[in-house]
This record gives sequence, structure tokens and C-alpha cells, in this order.
Amino acid sequence: MLDIRPILLVIGTLLCVLAIAMCFPAIADGVVGNPDWQVFAVSGGFTLFAGVALIMTSWGTKTRFTLRHGFLMATFSWLVLTIFGALPFAFSNMHMSPADSFFEAMSGITTTGSTVITGLDTAPPGILLWRSILQWLGGLGIIVMAISILPMLNVGGMQLFRVEAFDTEDKVLPKAAQMSAGLTIVYLALTFIWAGGYWLLGMSGFDAITHAMTTIATGGFSTHDASMGYFQSPAIDALTTCGMILGSLPFILYLRLIRGDVSSFSKDTQIQWFLAIASTAVLVVAGYLWIGNGMTPLDALRYSSFNVVSIMTGTGYATTDYGQWGAFAIPIFFLIMVVGGCAGSTTCGIKIFRFQVVFAAAHTQLKKLLEPHGVFIPYYNHRPISDDVIVSVLSFFFLFATTFSFLALALGMMGLDFITAMSSAATAIANVGPGLGDTVGPAGNFQSLPDGAKWLMAGGMLLGRLELFTVMVLFTRSFWRN
Amino acid sequence: MLDIRPILLVIGTLLCVLAIAMCFPAIADGVVGNPDWQVFAVSGGFTLFAGVALIMTSWGTKTRFTLRHGFLMATFSWLVLTIFGALPFAFSNMHMSPADSFFEAMSGITTTGSTVITGLDTAPPGILLWRSILQWLGGLGIIVMAISILPMLNVGGMQLFRVEAFDTEDKVLPKAAQMSAGLTIVYLALTFIWAGGYWLLGMSGFDAITHAMTTIATGGFSTHDASMGYFQSPAIDALTTCGMILGSLPFILYLRLIRGDVSSFSKDTQIQWFLAIASTAVLVVAGYLWIGNGMTPLDALRYSSFNVVSIMTGTGYATTDYGQWGAFAIPIFFLIMVVGGCAGSTTCGIKIFRFQVVFAAAHTQLKKLLEPHGVFIPYYNHRPISDDVIVSVLSFFFLFATTFSFLALALGMMGLDFITAMSSAATAIANVGPGLGDTVGPAGNFQSLPDGAKWLMAGGMLLGRLELFTVMVLFTRSFWRN
Repeated sequence: MLDIRPILLVIGTLLCVLAIAMCFPAIADGVVGNPDWQVFAVSGGFTLFAGVALIMTSWGTKTRFTLRHGFLMATFSWLVLTIFGALPFAFSNMHMSPADSFFEAMSGITTTGSTVITGLDTAPPGILLWRSILQWLGGLGIIVMAISILPMLNVGGMQLFRVEAFDTEDKVLPKAAQMSAGLTIVYLALTFIWAGGYWLLGMSGFDAITHAMTTIATGGFSTHDASMGYFQSPAIDALTTCGMILGSLPFILYLRLIRGDVSSFSKDTQIQWFLAIASTAVLVVAGYLWIGNGMTPLDALRYSSFNVVSIMTGTGYATTDYGQWGAFAIPIFFLIMVVGGCAGSTTCGIKIFRFQVVFAAAHTQLKKLLEPHGVFIPYYNHRPISDDVIVSVLSFFFLFATTFSFLALALGMMGLDFITAMSSAATAIANVGPGLGDTVGPAGNFQSLPDGAKWLMAGGMLLGRLELFTVMVLFTRSFWRN
Repeated sequence: MLDIRPILLVIGTLLCVLAIAMCFPAIADGVVGNPDWQVFAVSGGFTLFAGVALIMTSWGTKTRFTLRHGFLMATFSWLVLTIFGALPFAFSNMHMSPADSFFEAMSGITTTGSTVITGLDTAPPGILLWRSILQWLGGLGIIVMAISILPMLNVGGMQLFRVEAFDTEDKVLPKAAQMSAGLTIVYLALTFIWAGGYWLLGMSGFDAITHAMTTIATGGFSTHDASMGYFQSPAIDALTTCGMILGSLPFILYLRLIRGDVSSFSKDTQIQWFLAIASTAVLVVAGYLWIGNGMTPLDALRYSSFNVVSIMTGTGYATTDYGQWGAFAIPIFFLIMVVGGCAGSTTCGIKIFRFQVVFAAAHTQLKKLLEPHGVFIPYYNHRPISDDVIVSVLSFFFLFATTFSFLALALGMMGLDFITAMSSAATAIANVGPGLGDTVGPAGNFQSLPDGAKWLMAGGMLLGRLELFTVMVLFTRSFWRN
């Protein structure tokens, strides 16, 4: 029998953090005199109580933290935080159903950005701030996990980043704590800079803060139904695009950059590939908007760069209904949706490094066809890739495709039309935000979906956020066998 | 510089076979007095001339056959045969454009079964017979290749079947020739049996022969616009379903079965998985048709089993417009479309054994997550799978997904709507036949697509038929170096 007290201790601590975070929307609602401040006070109190209770029951445990603990902790901490994070939605005067509340909270904390709420412009500030805080915390959470937990769990090729994170075997825990602190400071600093920038460019203080939080987290929740399109400002568009790109790069490299190590940033092939793929997509779509849709070149570049980067990084802001860009653009959006950003960033999706690894593996495979006895070694970021990592990454692709297929299938069975089912499945697993088509596209939202579809999609978001394997392993027999 | 004479010799021989095959439609047209018999006579003469010329220029070469020759031969023999096979379409009084003729011939010879021809019911018998012959030859060709060439080329995990095919290292060539002869006899016998069966069940002699050819080849060309639905006969439906299933099993096992080796047939896990997946899909769809669409249970089972098996085996016959079965069925059809049948059969698609291998690999990967230093060995068909095969199969999945994505993207860019672009790409690469949606679904055809889309799809069919790697390797630098 697994002693779960170390897990409860961690979850309890995280719940206390969540409870403290609930104070901010309570204050925001209190300032404007909205009675919803009580909702946050009650939710916060309840969450704090649960957190403290968990900590007290598990305090002083001497159980060694094993891999099994790691997997259980990863999945259940996100799950429990989502449940408590959903309380304000359920209790607020917006009268959201359990499915809607859970969907919105999961979409927030996984930085997906799909929403079931309409009428954001008139919603109370507390709820709006809470949505941004959930994304901000979720983004920070995944960055910290990506350097501390995931590489040790070996999921889907993340072991590639273990060496980078910890050069020496000993002192792993203090070093992880130190790095996490560093990453938090960088994350906080970027958020402040972007909030300042948005404010200088004309946003209200409240809009500046909430959007800065969801930009750096590549989350995509907005305080307006029209998303970033509400502001109608090329300068804000450009600043947001830069912010989303920064949020998609490996945060660990920012720490090195600060220490003066420019080369590991400039020579990182993952960043190079990411920028190359993003630029190509932006230019292709901009060219189409210019030549095919009659936009001016500058407008084409503005709308293309913002919306392509928003979808590829899984942010999910929109400045226009790109669903109307026609048959040419839809497949491109569908494709970049699953690509994602770099490992160790706030983005989700398959991630660039996996494409690099499989590309290298497939290339090696092709060479080997010609010389079956030759020895060819695939490289990632100037280092040879072990067979273990290749199988791990390729299994990830397979699992991603399978999960996507079954989710799309299940959504189709619930009566969603083809493009809605396909894009909803993709947007959930890749934590993007809006889907494609009339119902769930950038101009629509997920309100009208049946409850079952919302629960399924929330599950898809969790799976995607935790790199599939982390959750799937809990469903194997060997996990529960002693 | 590679000496290509051995390749020309093989292609020349195949062209002579094709020329002889053109006599049959010439006779069919001659019998009914259709002037198109001249088209086949001219095309046949031209093809024979080209074949003999190739043989004569390459006769007596002593060049050793290398792997490079194998790859070039595989790709170019299919390509050249398609070009000559397209001649009757181009010259006939149906006035088909080059793109249409090439598309139809490629769709035939790869046993895809997508068509650009409408008005099949009134088309001359020569053309109808020619379409069936192309599929029949293509089906035979892939079975022979699957046991003789593909395992030696190591493409996408096909090396798994090398040991099975040749128990001893020496005498590979005579043994391959002997086995090919055996397979041809089995293939021919099955075709005759099915032709007799169709005839007994009420088809005309001509319909019986043409449909028997395209059933065993899992090709799917019909002599009627309404496909098998024309006959409105449950008995014919059932016979066809059995034929398509037989065409999807590894033909090499039929040879063993004849030799009295029942156990290698009954214990083959690929066959078990195939039947299990097919039955599940049939039952799920039948259940839906019964409960959700109000069919009688028997009708539901009849329509479900026929059309699900037709799509999964990549045959492409239809007895009804399953595109109208609603949002529930469409994603299922989309999914089983790419699954395909067993390796060493006439079917295409990803194929069952690859799913078994990746499933075993992913399962091993999950176990390894819990015990990073444990040794877990994945099994296929009661035998351990080497790392090499796993990477090979997983690379195939990746290449399949990538090819599919780019093809769908390119088709979308040509203006096809989402479901048409997606399903056309899938149906081409998996050599299925009809797509989904109003345009290219079972009730439509590919006539209205732009020429560019037809060329691209024909390329996709060739790629899919030759397991992707065989063609892709020709585009690597290392192939042409030296």
C-alpha cells in the first residue's frame, strides 16, 4: 500500500497558495462593490481549510518520495486544484453548472483558454481576475514541473532535459528549489513588464494586468468577448505577439541568459526551429491574405502574425475571426494547433523538440534503408539521441494521435459535427483555446456543447498538459501492483 | 553511376504482361461491337513495343541487384505501369483528360478505388473490364512484393516478416519465385470462386467476373455508379464482405494452410486483432443504426458489416450512402479508414501489425516509467520485437501522419472544404476509395476536384501503396550520392 501522505502534503500546500490567490478577486469585487466578493471569501476559506487539513494530517511523514508518488502527485495536484479553482465559478451569481465550472477552471489552470462564458465585458471583475490568475498559476506550475518533475518521470522524451537541468547528480532537491525560485522571479518580471507595456499602450490598469498574466502564460483568457480584437490596436497586437513568443521559449534559458550565458540561448536548435516554423506559417498565411483576400500587405502581416502565433503557442487570443479566412487557412491553423512551443515553456501541444527528434530518427531510418549495416546516430541540439529517447518520443506521437482520435470520436458520437469534433479534440489536448468551425471557432465558444463533451474535453486538457504519459501510467495494472 | 538495366528488364517484363492484359478488354469491346476495341489494341501494341524495347536494351546484364535497385524498381515499376495503364482511358471515347486518366489508372493499380468516372452503367465493357484488371493486377503485385521485395527493403517494420517468408538464408531467389507462383494460384483460385459465387447469386457473367476481381484485390471499382448497392441483394453483400475479409489476411498463410499448417493461421495475432477490431466497429455502428437510426437489427447488421468492412479493408464498395449516417458514424469511418488490414494482403493503410507493435512499445514504455532500470521486452506474434523494428514502425506512423497532414493541407489550399480535403488525403494514402462529405463521399466522386488535387492524390496513393519509405528514400541525398 502506497503511503500517500507526501502527496497530500504537496497538494495541501498548493491549496493554501490557491486560497491566498482567491483574496485578489475578492478585493477586486469588493472595490467595485460587487457582492461576489463573498463568493471568493467563502471559496478561499473553504480551500484554505482543506489545504491546512491536508497538511496537518500528513505533517512529519518520513516516507521517501518514489516515482509512483511523482506520477500520482502530478495528476492529482492538477485535478484537486481544478476542483477547488472551480468553486468561485459554481458559487458566483453567474450560475454556472458543475460541468461549466469544472471546464472553465480546467481550461484556466491548464492554460488552454477555451471558455463557456459569454458576456465577459459585463462580467464582475472578480471572476475575470480569477480566470487570469488560474492561467497565470497554471503557467508557472508547468514551468516549474517541466524542470523539476517531468524530466525525472521520463515522460515522452522529457529525459532529454534532465541533463540540462541538473548537471550533477547530487543536491537535486535544493538545486530544483533554487531554480524554481529563479524561474518564478523571471515569470513575475515578464508579467510586470507586459502589464506596464499594455498600460502604456492604452489599456486600463485592470485589463493590462489580466492580459499580461494570460499572455506570458500563453493562456488566452481575455476580459472581452472580442478577445484582443477589442482594443483595435496594432501596437497592442505586436506587444502581445512578442509576449506569446517569449512565453513559448524554454524558461530555463532565461535564467542562463541572466547569468550571461548568451550562447546556450542563441545556439538552442529548439528555439531556432520554433521561430522558423512560426515565421513560415506567418508568411504563408500573410501572403494568402494579401494576394487571395485583398488585405494590404501590412494588415495581412499584422493579422497573420498575431493569430498564427496565438494558435501555434496555444494561447488562443484572436484579433479577428480567422475562421472566415477560407479553405486555405483552416488546415494550416489545424496543423499548427498541435505543434506547440518549446519544452520548458508555458505552451502545450506536441512541442518542437519532439518534431526534431522524430525528424532526426526518420532521417536516420531512411539512411539505414540504404545501408542496413551502417551506424547512423540521430542528433538533438548537437547531442546524440539515445534509442530510449527516440522510442519514448515516438510513443508520445502515437499516444497523442490515439488520444486525439478517441476524443474526436467520442465528441462526434455526442452529436458534434465533423470540424467541431475534430478541432475541439485538438484544441483540448494541445491546450490551445478556440477550435475551428462556426460553433467553437474564434467567434464562438464552448457554451453550447453538451455537458458530456465538456467533461471529456476537460479530461483531454489535463492529459495534454501532463504530457499524456503522466496520467496514462495511472491506468496501467503495473502501477497498482506492488 | 547506378546501372539501371536490371530495373529496365523487370519493368519491360511487367509491361509485356500489361500488354497481354489489354487483350481482354479489346475482346470484350469487340464482342459487343464497341469501336473502343481499337483503343485497347493500339494501347496494347504500344505497351508491348515499349516492354520489348526495354527488355532488349537490358538483356544479358550481369549487374548485381542492390538495395538501391530494389527501391528504384519498386517505385518506378508502379509509376511506369500506371502511365501505360492510363493510355486506354486517355484514348477511349470517354475523352478523359491526362489528369483524370492518370488518377483513374493509379487508383486502379494501387487498389484504391477512387473514381473520376460517372455513368459507369452505360460505359463500354472494355473500360469497365480494364478498371477491374488494373486492380486485380495491382492486388497481385502488392502481395508478391510484400513477401519478396518489401521485407528486404526493411520499410516501416516489414522486416518482421522476412524471417517468416524465408526460413533459410540461401536459395532466396528460387524460393521467392516458388512462393510467388503459389500466391498467384491462390489469388486466382479465390477470384474464380468468388466469380462463381456472384454468378450463382444472380449477377451477370460480366459483373460476376469484374466484381470478383475487385473484391479479392480489395480494390472497390464497380461497374455501376451505385456500386454493390445496385444489386440490392443481402446474399451478394454477405459474399462480398467475406471476400473483402479474405483479401485482407496475409496471403502467405493461405499457402501454409494448404500445406496443412492450420496453427500458424489460427494463432496469428495479426488476424485476431484484425477480426476483433473489425467486429467491434461493425457492432458499434450496427447498434447505432438500430437504436439511433431506427433500422431493424438485421438491416443494421447488414449495412454496417458491409460498409465498415469495405472501408476498413480499403476496398471502397458501398451499398448505401453511409455519409448520411450522421455525426456518430463519420468519425468512426474516418478512423477505420487508416487502420487497414494485415501485412502481406491486398489492403493498404497503416496495417494491423503496426498497431500491435506500437501498442506493445507504448505499453512497455509505460511500464518503464515506473521502473526506469527494469528490462521490459515488447512482443509481436509471440516473438520479441527488436528496438530496430520499433523505431522503424514508429517512424512509419510519424511519416504517415506527416504525409497525411501535408496532403490535406495542400488539398485545402486548392480550395477543397475541410472534410473533403481531410478525407481525400486519408483515402488516397490509405488506398481506400471514397472519401467523406458531399463531394467525394460514397454518393459522390472525384470528378469535380481540380486537376492539381488529382495529381497530388495520385501521388499520395503511390506513396501509401509502397509503404511511404520506399518512395521517400529516393528523395534523400544519400540515395543519389556515390
